[in-house]
Amino acid sequence: MVEPKPIDNLQLDAAGRLRHFLSIEGLDRDLLLRIMDTAESFAAVSEQKVKKVPLLRGKTIVNLFFENSTRTRTTFELAAKRLSADVLNINIAVSATAKGESLLDTVRNLEAMHADMFVVRHEQSGAAHFIARHVAPHVSVINAGDGRHAHPTQAMLDMFTIRRLKGQFDALRVAVVGDILHSRVARSEIRALNALGAAEVRVVAPKTLLPAQVETLGVKVFRNLEEGLRDVDVIIMLRLQKERMSGALLPSEHEYFTCFGLTEQRLALAKADVIVMHPGPVNRNIEIESRVADGPHSVILQQVSHGIAVRMAILSMAMQVGDGRPGRRVNA
Amino acid sequence: MVEPKPIDNLQLDAAGRLRHFLSIEGLDRDLLLRIMDTAESFAAVSEQKVKKVPLLRGKTIVNLFFENSTRTRTTFELAAKRLSADVLNINIAVSATAKGESLLDTVRNLEAMHADMFVVRHEQSGAAHFIARHVAPHVSVINAGDGRHAHPTQAMLDMFTIRRLKGQFDALRVAVVGDILHSRVARSEIRALNALGAAEVRVVAPKTLLPAQVETLGVKVFRNLEEGLRDVDVIIMLRLQKERMSGALLPSEHEYFTCFGLTEQRLALAKADVIVMHPGPVNRNIEIESRVADGPHSVILQQVSHGIAVRMAILSMAMQVGDGRPGRRVNA
Amino acid sequence: MVEPKPIDNLQLDAAGRLRHFLSIEGLDRDLLLRIMDTAESFAAVSEQKVKKVPLLRGKTIVNLFFENSTRTRTTFELAAKRLSADVLNINIAVSATAKGESLLDTVRNLEAMHADMFVVRHEQSGAAHFIARHVAPHVSVINAGDGRHAHPTQAMLDMFTIRRLKGQFDALRVAVVGDILHSRVARSEIRALNALGAAEVRVVAPKTLLPAQVETLGVKVFRNLEEGLRDVDVIIMLRLQKERMSGALLPSEHEYFTCFGLTEQRLALAKADVIVMHPGPVNRNIEIESRVADGPHSVILQQVSHGIAVRMAILSMAMQVGDGRPGRRVNA
Repeated sequence: MVEPKPIDNLQLDAAGRLRHFLSIEGLDRDLLLRIMDTAESFAAVSEQKVKKVPLLRGKTIVNLFFENSTRTRTTFELAAKRLSADVLNINIAVSATAKGESLLDTVRNLEAMHADMFVVRHEQSGAAHFIARHVAPHVSVINAGDGRHAHPTQAMLDMFTIRRLKGQFDALRVAVVGDILHSRVARSEIRALNALGAAEVRVVAPKTLLPAQVETLGVKVFRNLEEGLRDVDVIIMLRLQKERMSGALLPSEHEYFTCFGLTEQRLALAKADVIVMHPGPVNRNIEIESRVADGPHSVILQQVSHGIAVRMAILSMAMQVGDGRPGRRVNA
Repeated sequence: MVEPKPIDNLQLDAAGRLRHFLSIEGLDRDLLLRIMDTAESFAAVSEQKVKKVPLLRGKTIVNLFFENSTRTRTTFELAAKRLSADVLNINIAVSATAKGESLLDTVRNLEAMHADMFVVRHEQSGAAHFIARHVAPHVSVINAGDGRHAHPTQAMLDMFTIRRLKGQFDALRVAVVGDILHSRVARSEIRALNALGAAEVRVVAPKTLLPAQVETLGVKVFRNLEEGLRDVDVIIMLRLQKERMSGALLPSEHEYFTCFGLTEQRLALAKADVIVMHPGPVNRNIEIESRVADGPHSVILQQVSHGIAVRMAILSMAMQVGDGRPGRRVNA
Repeated sequence: MVEPKPIDNLQLDAAGRLRHFLSIEGLDRDLLLRIMDTAESFAAVSEQKVKKVPLLRGKTIVNLFFENSTRTRTTFELAAKRLSADVLNINIAVSATAKGESLLDTVRNLEAMHADMFVVRHEQSGAAHFIARHVAPHVSVINAGDGRHAHPTQAMLDMFTIRRLKGQFDALRVAVVGDILHSRVARSEIRALNALGAAEVRVVAPKTLLPAQVETLGVKVFRNLEEGLRDVDVIIMLRLQKERMSGALLPSEHEYFTCFGLTEQRLALAKADVIVMHPGPVNRNIEIESRVADGPHSVILQQVSHGIAVRMAILSMAMQVGDGRPGRRVNA
């Protein structure tokens, strides 16, 4: 994983409030908790009869997707519409913006049209940071996934799901299982779990799917799934990004499932009330057995629901409205 | 035509109200009339200065199209927007959901995002029924065309058009002309006309374009257009689905027009006040002469207008609002 | 340039108010000023916290694009949404409407769905006029670019930009530089500048990129850039439409830049307070040096901002609301 240089407080304004949401790094425990508290109020909105609040009415949110992802785009579009924002979907072939210069031209033009926020998906690590470093003062940037680097809204919805189901983090043992090396989700998860004080964060993967010096991220490494699952409270399965792998890294899907697939039998090694998470879409019977994915420990669909609430929280907080602080009521 | 197994009341809730709208089968005359009465109130909305009512504000309607149809998608999108719903358009290549399992995964994910309704278009007969059988209790499914099976909103807009222009059904002779075999519209039309008590429903087609045992649907069969048109009140022309036909079924477009094209001369065989309908888009001078399509008997564009009103009625009734019953005012 | 036959007042209603907006031709100075006055009030809307006015609530605006242009479509979509209209984007491959007949069928169908306005982009000159000549009385047509003929909203946003920055037109010398021959913008600009009484309108281009008898448009012709720029107040650079040119017209991009590229050195020949305009997207270092495009004289991004305000003005005026006349307040 290429680590972009840390940027002092690029994500926060002078008062310590969220301005951009680019990565879990640089956000402290308090802010992560504040995001979850705000998401809590929005979770209720999605269950109302009228699933809409006027918080971002008259704001223009641009989904700037340089990489196709219907699923992620859909969740951001729904979150924005439920906040009453106007949403513009723009898909840009990477070829058209091969030069950094023309990426900036695109951003400048949308700014001139008075866009208030860019939700950026890009195959290159650091793209959202790059844009955030160059936007006008009134514009916020949300990272919706950049290369292998980060997918911080996914991490936050997972934290929100864990908190809702498990309460405090400090007693939890969490295993992150699968392709750590290529996963933009894994890195964000690990940072968030550590920031929130999880008792133990484990990564479980074959050697070929682990980044070098992964221990420095603050994790315990397991190369054997049975050992890695023993007594954990939370299992976060990663999606096998087939397209990212050359044959050299993995012998076959079948062999992967044999060694690292989550089966009911293996699940029994974890705590009795373990929850099973997956960012979706699930490759059934490759990284996870269908009856586990659909079973009583699975919270995969709850993650999807929470994804809307968490994105509503992040969008509205970055726009400096409805951040869950006293006196700033979401439904006011 | 493959007949999916009948499903008891899948379309109705325990109180007999519309829950899903999948096919004309299983809906009684009263309900069809209630849809038309509700559509009547929405027809007025589309002619207002502000063509919008707040009935479905805060609801999320997903256009789930597994088969491309800009035209049908557009009418549902407009209907939903005029009801103030949020609309999400999702086009899914059939390949991505080749297994029924992953179709369900897609549905489950959208449900988890608190979608309220799926408008489903699919090339396979029974797809909308399949989804309706599996959705959560609060979600409604509307069939926007499935394979050769049904296209029930098209049938309802045609019934609405006939009622507006002809009043009662019980004195009407209606001819459905063209490719009955491959038409998803034809079957729905025939059922609706019979449910509403039309005096006589005729199908007019060459032998190769008629399904086996078509008489069992409750129609009189004509293989000669002149005979079939004699003294009818309503002519429903079907679109020639060129892409569905192999050369064996039809000699040539020209020959088809010679035998089954609706010309002014043939139109004169019908009643003097006959109306001519077509689901569009018209293949001019193949199934219908241009001057008939644009002539004084044609109500083709009125059908399009009515399509919005009828879809607004069905969407709002399936969401249990504005079903035209006393005390539930559409504009309240 | 093929000149469509002039059409008496197709753009105006009996009371002289804007009904369609197709070309600058046929619109007098007063109306152009009225558009700019109305745009002035909308420029404020885009800078408000809630960038939305309810003027076109419940209206349906169809972006009918027969030619792909994300940029132009985006500006119209934003303008329409900020006026609270419902927007429908329809992209139509030219092949599907090869015959004028089926183009009309498409229009008739959308009219039947109670569309209120078509924003038309087409590669053929006169397409928007053709549609305007055939639409129903309540429907307005806006030309968003047709072939080489006109791009009148671009011209109006440029006039608005000039007026905001320079005040009166009657003392201004304006140079339009580049591919006059293939530019749909150039013709509209020249007409607008003359209608507004600019002191001098110059075109600057190599012989191969000038239309025959260009002088008849009311311009002074320069084939040398240095001479053409001398003492001008406004420079309008045109985009080099590479795809429209055969090798015979231009030796190479590099040679074009050498002769007709706007550099800092050449800019110094103009007045000290000259403004530099470009319709975008800029071909950096082909028609304009990067440091000029981003320099202190450049107003390129202001043009983009003004594009939203001017389009809001034109959309609302064509719908007969908010035309800036006394007693018709935009924010009422």
